[in-house]
Amino acid sequence: MVSNPEISFSTRIRKSPFFESTMKWGCKGFTVYNKMYMPTYYKTFVDDYWSLVNDVTLWDVAGERQIEVQGKDAEKFVEFITPRDISKCKIGQCMYVLLTEKNGGIVNDPVLLKLAENHFWLSIADSDVLLWCLGIASANNFDVQLGEADVSPLSLQGPKAPDLMEKISGSWLRDLKFFCFKETTINDIPVVIARSGWSGEAGYEIYLLDRKKGNDLWEIFMDAGKEYNIAPAAPSQISRIECGMLSYGSDMNLQENPYDISLGKFVDLNKKAIFLSKEALTSIKQKGITKELVGVEIAEKTTDEFVRDHLPIYDEKNCVGKITSSVYSPRLEKNIGLAIMDKKNRDSKNLKLKYNNRSIKIKISKLPFLRNK
Amino acid sequence: MVSNPEISFSTRIRKSPFFESTMKWGCKGFTVYNKMYMPTYYKTFVDDYWSLVNDVTLWDVAGERQIEVQGKDAEKFVEFITPRDISKCKIGQCMYVLLTEKNGGIVNDPVLLKLAENHFWLSIADSDVLLWCLGIASANNFDVQLGEADVSPLSLQGPKAPDLMEKISGSWLRDLKFFCFKETTINDIPVVIARSGWSGEAGYEIYLLDRKKGNDLWEIFMDAGKEYNIAPAAPSQISRIECGMLSYGSDMNLQENPYDISLGKFVDLNKKAIFLSKEALTSIKQKGITKELVGVEIAEKTTDEFVRDHLPIYDEKNCVGKITSSVYSPRLEKNIGLAIMDKKNRDSKNLKLKYNNRSIKIKISKLPFLRNK
Repeated sequence: MVSNPEISFSTRIRKSPFFESTMKWGCKGFTVYNKMYMPTYYKTFVDDYWSLVNDVTLWDVAGERQIEVQGKDAEKFVEFITPRDISKCKIGQCMYVLLTEKNGGIVNDPVLLKLAENHFWLSIADSDVLLWCLGIASANNFDVQLGEADVSPLSLQGPKAPDLMEKISGSWLRDLKFFCFKETTINDIPVVIARSGWSGEAGYEIYLLDRKKGNDLWEIFMDAGKEYNIAPAAPSQISRIECGMLSYGSDMNLQENPYDISLGKFVDLNKKAIFLSKEALTSIKQKGITKELVGVEIAEKTTDEFVRDHLPIYDEKNCVGKITSSVYSPRLEKNIGLAIMDKKNRDSKNLKLKYNNRSIKIKISKLPFLRNK
Repeated sequence: MVSNPEISFSTRIRKSPFFESTMKWGCKGFTVYNKMYMPTYYKTFVDDYWSLVNDVTLWDVAGERQIEVQGKDAEKFVEFITPRDISKCKIGQCMYVLLTEKNGGIVNDPVLLKLAENHFWLSIADSDVLLWCLGIASANNFDVQLGEADVSPLSLQGPKAPDLMEKISGSWLRDLKFFCFKETTINDIPVVIARSGWSGEAGYEIYLLDRKKGNDLWEIFMDAGKEYNIAPAAPSQISRIECGMLSYGSDMNLQENPYDISLGKFVDLNKKAIFLSKEALTSIKQKGITKELVGVEIAEKTTDEFVRDHLPIYDEKNCVGKITSSVYSPRLEKNIGLAIMDKKNRDSKNLKLKYNNRSIKIKISKLPFLRNK
C-alpha cells in the first residue's frame, strides 16, 4: 500500500480532547469531520477491523458534535426539522432521525438524545446542522437556544466491550438497553454513557463532558482494556458496510431524500407535529418511490479497499445507479459495497460498473451482508 | 520536520476537478475545505512560499465553492445576510463581504460576485453557507433559488502572474481592474477570470465552469508557465499572515462579530436594505467595541511554523487575548502571528503567551507586516 499525502494541521480545524492520546497511540491516518481532525486507522484498516470483530476497540469520534436544543419550543423545533415522530422519545432515550430540508433533501442523520423535557442533543454526522438550525430558528420565531455543546464522544466497540465497560463502570451497565443512555462519572470524570455505536458489534458511546479530561479518560480505557486485547481504532468502513450502515456524505446527501436510500421507515407523514419537509415528502411518496439503497457484490477481488470514489452503475444500455461506498470484506473474502439504484432496474442481469476504463460485473445482494449484534 | 499522519480518502469528502493533477505534480499535504480535499503544499511550505513571492504559483482552491443565489429576491436576500451595503455592486464586480447571524456572529467571509441582476455567487470560506441560507430562505419566503454551482476555482498568484495570464488569455487582462471579473474561454474551456486572490502578490482566480476539464486547464497553466518558473502550490499561510489576511475558522468564527476582528468597515448599520444582524450589531457598537485584531511578533525563533493551536495571551495578571494564527516569516526572519486582543490591554508592556509550559514574550505589531501588491 503506497501511503497517502499527509494531513496538514492548522488552527482552522479543531483538535479533539483526545488528540494527544491518538497521536501517542500511533494514529497513522486522519480525516476531517465537522471541522475537527478525526482518526481513521492505527495499524492498518484490516488489522484494526480484526481487533473490532474479535476483541474491543476505542475510537475518538469527538467529531460527532452535539448540537444542543433547549428552551420552551425545543421539542416543537426538533419535530419541525425531522419527519420522524419524536413525541414518544423518553428522557434517557436515543433515536436515529433524519433531518430534512423543505424539498425533502437530507441535511444530516444524527442520533437524537433526550436529556430532559425540552432539552435535546443532536449527535451529528458531518454537516453543519447548527448553521441550518440557526437559519430556521431566527426566521421562525422559535423560542429556543441553539449551540454546540462542549461534549466529545469516545466509542467503545467490539464483542468484549460489555465486559470492559462493566469493569470500568459497574454491573448496572448490563441493564442499559440498546439506544438508552445515562449520566455518570468514570474516576470523577463526568460522562454520559449510551449503548450505541456505528459498527456491527456490541458497544457503547461515552460522551465526555469535561474536555480537559480527554487524555485521562482515554488512558483509563486503554489501561483497563489490556486484558481484553483492546486496540485503538476508528470507525471501520469495513464493518459498517458489512452490516449495511450508512454514512452521511457517502451514501446520502442533500440531493437524496429518505425514500431514495430506503429509509422511509423514519418518515411519518401523519405525525401530529408540523414539519418543514411534509409537503415535499408527501408529494414524493404519492408520485411513487423510484430509487432504493442496496448492497452490491463486486466481481473483482483485491486485498485493500476497492475504490474511494462514487462510481456509476450500468445495465446493458444506461446508467442505472451509483456505488456510494465500497470495501474489501476480509470475512466474506470479496469486495462489497452500497449503491443507490433505480428501482425499475433492480432485476437487471448484466449490471456492471466502469472503473479505470474496465467493466466490472456486480450483483445485487441482501443487506446486511453480516451482522453480529 | 517529522511528517504528519496521512490523510484518508473516501467517498465522504469530494475530490476536486484538479485532484489527479495535484497528485501527479507531487502534492505532499492536504486539508479538507468545504468537504473537499484541498492541497496544502508540494515541496515544503517555505519552498512553495519562495515560488509565490519570486515567481508564480498555481493553486487548486476548488474547495472555495460557489453558493449561487438567483431569482426575483436574490439581491434582497444577499442584502439580508450581510451587514455590508451591496446595492452599489456592479455586474462584473467582486465584493468582500461578511455574512452575519442574528446575534452578529460571523458565518463566513466570502467574495461576492455579481453575475447579472439578481444573480450572484458567494465564493465561500470553509463553513456551510448553503445550509444556513436554506434555513433562512425556507422560513422567510424569499423568492430565491439557492444551490452550489458546479464551479471550481484555480488561483494563479505571484509577481509573474500578470505576464503568464496575458500569455494565456491575451492583453485585455491588463485592463481587468482589481476585484473585477469576466467570463471567457481558455482553449475552449469555459471560465470566469477575476483579478483577485488570497496572497500578498498580484494574481487571478480562474473559475472553471466545466468540471470535466479540470486536468486540461491545469496542464495549460503548467505548460505555459514554464518560462516563468511556475510551481504548483497552495494558499500560503506565510504570505497571508505577512500581509494580514484573515482565515475563517482560524481568525474568526461564529463566536466573533465583525468589530472583534477590526472589520467594522464592512458593516453599514445605516444601509437601506433590511438585514438579519442589524439589531445585534447596532447594540454591540453602541455598547463600545472591546476587542481588536492585531499583528504580533513572537520572541521565539524557529525555522518552521511556530505552533498550530490557538494560544492564550497574558499580561501581568490576566488572559487578555489569543493568538489565532502564527507562522515563521522567512523574509522578516521572525515568528509572527495574528491575535484577537482586549482593546484595553493594547498598551500592556509585558505580553506573553504560554506554550508547552514556557512563557514566551510577544509584542504588538502593525498590520500588514509586509505587502507587495
